[in-house]
Amino acid sequence: MTKKISRRQVLAASGAGAGLLAVGAAGAFAVEARSETAELSSARSDLLDAVPFYGEHQAGITTPAQDRLHFVAFDVITSDRAKLVTMLQDWTSAAVRMTAGLDAGALGAVGGPAQAPPQDTGEALGLPPSQLTLTFGVGASLFRDARGRDRFGLAAKRPAALEDLPHFPGDALRAEISGGDLCVQACAQDPQVAVHAVRNLARIGMGVVSVRYSQLGFGRTSSTSTSQATPRNLMGFKDGTANLKAEETEELDKHLWAAAADGADWMAGGSYLVTRKIRMIVETWDRTSLSEQEAIFGRNKGEGAPLSGKGEFDEPDFGRKGPDGEPLIADEAHIKLAHPTMNGGARLLRRGYNFVDGSDGLGRLDAGLFFMAYQRDPRKQFVPVQRQLARRDILNEYIRHVSSGLFAVPPGVRDAADYWGRGLFA
Amino acid sequence: MTKKISRRQVLAASGAGAGLLAVGAAGAFAVEARSETAELSSARSDLLDAVPFYGEHQAGITTPAQDRLHFVAFDVITSDRAKLVTMLQDWTSAAVRMTAGLDAGALGAVGGPAQAPPQDTGEALGLPPSQLTLTFGVGASLFRDARGRDRFGLAAKRPAALEDLPHFPGDALRAEISGGDLCVQACAQDPQVAVHAVRNLARIGMGVVSVRYSQLGFGRTSSTSTSQATPRNLMGFKDGTANLKAEETEELDKHLWAAAADGADWMAGGSYLVTRKIRMIVETWDRTSLSEQEAIFGRNKGEGAPLSGKGEFDEPDFGRKGPDGEPLIADEAHIKLAHPTMNGGARLLRRGYNFVDGSDGLGRLDAGLFFMAYQRDPRKQFVPVQRQLARRDILNEYIRHVSSGLFAVPPGVRDAADYWGRGLFA
Repeated sequence: MTKKISRRQVLAASGAGAGLLAVGAAGAFAVEARSETAELSSARSDLLDAVPFYGEHQAGITTPAQDRLHFVAFDVITSDRAKLVTMLQDWTSAAVRMTAGLDAGALGAVGGPAQAPPQDTGEALGLPPSQLTLTFGVGASLFRDARGRDRFGLAAKRPAALEDLPHFPGDALRAEISGGDLCVQACAQDPQVAVHAVRNLARIGMGVVSVRYSQLGFGRTSSTSTSQATPRNLMGFKDGTANLKAEETEELDKHLWAAAADGADWMAGGSYLVTRKIRMIVETWDRTSLSEQEAIFGRNKGEGAPLSGKGEFDEPDFGRKGPDGEPLIADEAHIKLAHPTMNGGARLLRRGYNFVDGSDGLGRLDAGLFFMAYQRDPRKQFVPVQRQLARRDILNEYIRHVSSGLFAVPPGVRDAADYWGRGLFA
Repeated sequence: MTKKISRRQVLAASGAGAGLLAVGAAGAFAVEARSETAELSSARSDLLDAVPFYGEHQAGITTPAQDRLHFVAFDVITSDRAKLVTMLQDWTSAAVRMTAGLDAGALGAVGGPAQAPPQDTGEALGLPPSQLTLTFGVGASLFRDARGRDRFGLAAKRPAALEDLPHFPGDALRAEISGGDLCVQACAQDPQVAVHAVRNLARIGMGVVSVRYSQLGFGRTSSTSTSQATPRNLMGFKDGTANLKAEETEELDKHLWAAAADGADWMAGGSYLVTRKIRMIVETWDRTSLSEQEAIFGRNKGEGAPLSGKGEFDEPDFGRKGPDGEPLIADEAHIKLAHPTMNGGARLLRRGYNFVDGSDGLGRLDAGLFFMAYQRDPRKQFVPVQRQLARRDILNEYIRHVSSGLFAVPPGVRDAADYWGRGLFA
């Protein structure tokens, strides 16, 4: 569908055409930007390529996790359903363009009037697609507002799985950075490309949506493909080794993708995204002994191996005991509490990112994990796992959940006639 | 001095050695992490290499600007001069290691007691040096506190150029994210590497310093070498085309490096860093017509060419008029107000970064430019330029200066016997 053509090529082409137009203040738009990222392209073009937008499922879920995140949650500020639908159509068109490495709309100066605001904000001009994916979801508050009113005639379509998450022990959630009527997860290898995409969606949505909160993440903390190594979180550990991966197609059908039989037709092929902003008290953690850190995770820090084994991918043996007769992996170790065998087989596709939001005014870095996990039904997956962790995980001494979100992420957009949320609004 | 050896190689070596030590909870530390960044290394190893730490000048000034920033300002919370000096020595040792791609200190588990906290926090294990530079500076408040007291017997050594910046019209500075007794600018191609470095310096400094504020930046906005293309700021424009560049050695002596003749011996070969966090009201900007945007900057948006010329590097011709008899570049255009010819020849080495700190609670992205500029004497360079911009730049309608810092950045550390600030404390 979408030709893989970069902003750079397009601009060169546009520039040639623009030579025929007025020259002056708003003159020819020929760009020969050579960013460092662009220079990389000949070397590792796959990291800079476009990820196909159209498909059965939305991109950005099983897509091998890119290195950078800009997540945004929006409040819908109109009560006009038609306006909302039009915006979703406009968003989808822009998403098709931006994920292909194009600008969000026709460039202001090429053929268009210079008296109008540009239809693209410009900061990604000359940058390659950089594996940008844009993944769209809707929150429960889109269906009914806080007073229970059916805002857009959608209440009957709310999936049962899109049920507010329960309160977990220790939750310190801030309402202003939780929830949201709509969300977009922008992932890319280049943060400037991810930021550009979110900003242009916000620009297009002016008057219809308002940014509720947004979060940048700089280092992926999970692998979503067997081709990727497990990265480290800001506690210095590999975590989520047992993550659901793109290659496990049968497991994905079981644990990741919603089916029509689950109750909401329009969600078949979609998934449910749980977001949790988890602040880490890194200063306290950094004063903890290595052996305690390893006991808490149940892994060693260097290799990431379960304390019962030697290699990262060794299956943890919770029965194995040390010379002192105690289990090598403690009952409260994170690796054990989160393990599928301890949670009725529940698995998640984790896709979180490290964040540092500056400092907290108390001399500490405001840092942690922006946890994101996709799943077929949070009631059977995230909720029981988190209930267990919230109650028993020793890690809780060093972390605090400060935001929470749950979004229904519809199936993929099929073609140019389709748009984000069509199944819901049609 | 420092061998260019990556964390990965070191860990492989350590792991082999660790086999001789206790195996168990805090066992062998063999790492074979393959991060995506590491995978890139065969393709573009120069971007992942180490930048030499020792030298006449500190690295991170004329070093070709890396793509990511973590800037941190510290308050010194001790009154004990010896403790401060010891910390600076410890910082320098850690900086030598980290810029070479090593961990900040010996790994807790290899040969050291597992009962002690690790001497490295671990999140950069397996990552290459990624051109990390750490650049150290001191603020005026280190010399005298707010009550005028000489805190560490340094007052007589305060350079005259390290004078508090004046108030500029329109300043909306927040004290808690301004100033600082010490600063470290961490730049790298990988944000995880920059974040790791700052965090470990904060860890090492516990009890001596406290993080006052820290700022992440994700896209460099200036070139500091002729080998680099001019990137775009979040207004979508190329700015700072006339930046001082590493290759202009004579100009650097004139505009960048402090000399003994300037009055403070210990600063010879150093420079002065001005930081300004400049929030951009991007939503308003995005509603402005292309022709107005271009008139404000005095450049076209696509190519970045002055409105009087065709190519980005064409010297702007402020006398050139359009068909209507008006100058093509308006008198209040940013390019003109900031131009050396309008400021007594003053030039700066700009080294700023784009930032997005989430959203501001009013439905807008909290985004902008973390401006950083190095110079020989701010009184003759940044101050007059900013005075002119603050008074006349039309851009002020779309921006707000919310933080400000000024730091004396000493010359380079010469060898293993030297340390950050030695000239000041010796």
